[in-house]
Amino acid sequence: MSRYLSDKYQSLEAYTPGEQPRDMRYVKLNTNESPYPPAPGVMEAAAKEAARAQLYSDPVCADLRDALAQRYGMKRANVFVSNGSDDILNFAFMAFAGGDVPAYFPDISYGFYSVYAALHGIQARPVPLKEDFSIDPADYMNLGGFIVIANPNAPTGMALTRDQVERIVAANPEHVVLIDEAYVDFGAESCLPLVEKYDNLLVVQTFSKSRGLAGARLGFAIAREGVIADLERIKYSTNPYSVNRMTLAAGVASLARDDYNADNCRRIVKTREATVEQLRVLGFEVLPSLANFVFARKPGVDGGWLYRELKARGVLVRHFDSPRIADFLRITIGAEQEMAVLMLKLKEILSET
Amino acid sequence: MSRYLSDKYQSLEAYTPGEQPRDMRYVKLNTNESPYPPAPGVMEAAAKEAARAQLYSDPVCADLRDALAQRYGMKRANVFVSNGSDDILNFAFMAFAGGDVPAYFPDISYGFYSVYAALHGIQARPVPLKEDFSIDPADYMNLGGFIVIANPNAPTGMALTRDQVERIVAANPEHVVLIDEAYVDFGAESCLPLVEKYDNLLVVQTFSKSRGLAGARLGFAIAREGVIADLERIKYSTNPYSVNRMTLAAGVASLARDDYNADNCRRIVKTREATVEQLRVLGFEVLPSLANFVFARKPGVDGGWLYRELKARGVLVRHFDSPRIADFLRITIGAEQEMAVLMLKLKEILSET
Repeated sequence: MSRYLSDKYQSLEAYTPGEQPRDMRYVKLNTNESPYPPAPGVMEAAAKEAARAQLYSDPVCADLRDALAQRYGMKRANVFVSNGSDDILNFAFMAFAGGDVPAYFPDISYGFYSVYAALHGIQARPVPLKEDFSIDPADYMNLGGFIVIANPNAPTGMALTRDQVERIVAANPEHVVLIDEAYVDFGAESCLPLVEKYDNLLVVQTFSKSRGLAGARLGFAIAREGVIADLERIKYSTNPYSVNRMTLAAGVASLARDDYNADNCRRIVKTREATVEQLRVLGFEVLPSLANFVFARKPGVDGGWLYRELKARGVLVRHFDSPRIADFLRITIGAEQEMAVLMLKLKEILSET
Repeated sequence: MSRYLSDKYQSLEAYTPGEQPRDMRYVKLNTNESPYPPAPGVMEAAAKEAARAQLYSDPVCADLRDALAQRYGMKRANVFVSNGSDDILNFAFMAFAGGDVPAYFPDISYGFYSVYAALHGIQARPVPLKEDFSIDPADYMNLGGFIVIANPNAPTGMALTRDQVERIVAANPEHVVLIDEAYVDFGAESCLPLVEKYDNLLVVQTFSKSRGLAGARLGFAIAREGVIADLERIKYSTNPYSVNRMTLAAGVASLARDDYNADNCRRIVKTREATVEQLRVLGFEVLPSLANFVFARKPGVDGGWLYRELKARGVLVRHFDSPRIADFLRITIGAEQEMAVLMLKLKEILSET
């Protein structure tokens, strides 16, 4: 820290992303990436744009927004894109909370929500998950603030139904309800069909998980025109060309082969179900996941220790040293052979104790 | 605008980027892009990363920061990179101004500075340029706030010497002085050699102009470790993976062929000098530019009218409808044949009046 840093950020604790070891020696199950490469055509589309990268990208992102609008039965004015869904979450916290408007989100959820609140001086009001780690819609009735819910939630993987989400959206007409659907394509119900009905619903999704484009940085949001216009206003006041040419083209190419992406999601779901079964055989308690990861603990086994033992054996998973979940591991669903290595190493570790 | 937008942004006027017509019919001299494609190797490097974009990019940006550190004789801890220099300017306004600390910048300069101030509730204190459109260092002595100076300045193209910048940096030891060197590679003196001496100096550069990578979105900053750590803290609190894989690789590949980039800068400078000469023959007053654009007016000719006439004839330049500069055009230096078209069209237009 320099002596010049503004007072308001001096106690700010930044988000800690999952480890990104660069030597590539690990079976990497810690940041919920897809085990499968981007759709056919993505590389060629990105390469073509790299060759003419001397020209700015389209700040309107017209082609990509049109492709998304067509994919989801919306209009361009209902679609916002930016440099990863983190970028969009940041803009939404700025636009729809602050001042007298606090931000409500589950106490156990994506760790970045509290960082955005702290960054922008927004009152954070964490809402405790129930004992079984589920979100109770009854806790989100008429809250008087901006609401953010990851659905499926992370790191639990547990999802609300669309009807449950609708109850929350309908009960908070004076504030935006942001549903973070980063993991929705692995089996949960999207609430996109509700956008037409509710002008306070903001749905955020990403190309990072179900479309295998985490490294391209591409998130999108769908909402009624007014809410999208608000996000555009913030984007045009920070970084109008926030999405580069290669990523815009990669997004369009990926959508053109959404059949490939859907196939990969089905493969991941199948691997997830097998993984859950195998973990339970090993004595793990596994929360019911509809995401591309599972959240599991083995009673009597320290989560931090197990994380470290796995890492020492070349398998990276995510461990959060936080109340209630310190004994859980969040395990990304990789390719079948990666999960086989995980199981082998878990058996080794547990047999040694 | 929705009824949910936070009060503080309801009067925010976003930055208006230069037109990015997508039909490509124009001779495009309006956004200071390079007329030359990215360096050899850039496309291949980006394509390779697109093929494995299912993995997040390195949030530390280690390879690129190391390459930049080597290029400029610094250490990795002195180098920050993000999603275009706009991203970095935004972070710097957040980190180093606000509260009791106003932001000072020339009244005629990059239009985004005042937008960042408005966005973050920072008091903006524009400092008038002198009558000849130059910046007078004497106006920036001991100001008691964050100072931002584009050097060369935009849209004038006029530059301060390194000694003049040093006087300003030395005279404001209690606040950060940000020198925006987006256009420095076209003939001005960089103040990077001063970083070692001053802990309040923050130099921001970009790959957009001199390296022909505007569409890849890549900016960087060089400063002492503490100031870089402050920027990292803001980045990790908004979007840790702010630079995608393709762009990181493109940046490294471009630096590996900085000889190619330097050659292009020399070509652009040569074309600029010829353009200035030709404009003067046509009766234009041209400010002394050390950038990849010129700022020119023809006495007695309305700038907005001339901009529209050129556009109607397929040549896009930038016009700012602002006090003191409404009769000027900012003309990007393109390839020789593009400038020949510009001259032809200018002669046509002026001969018809």
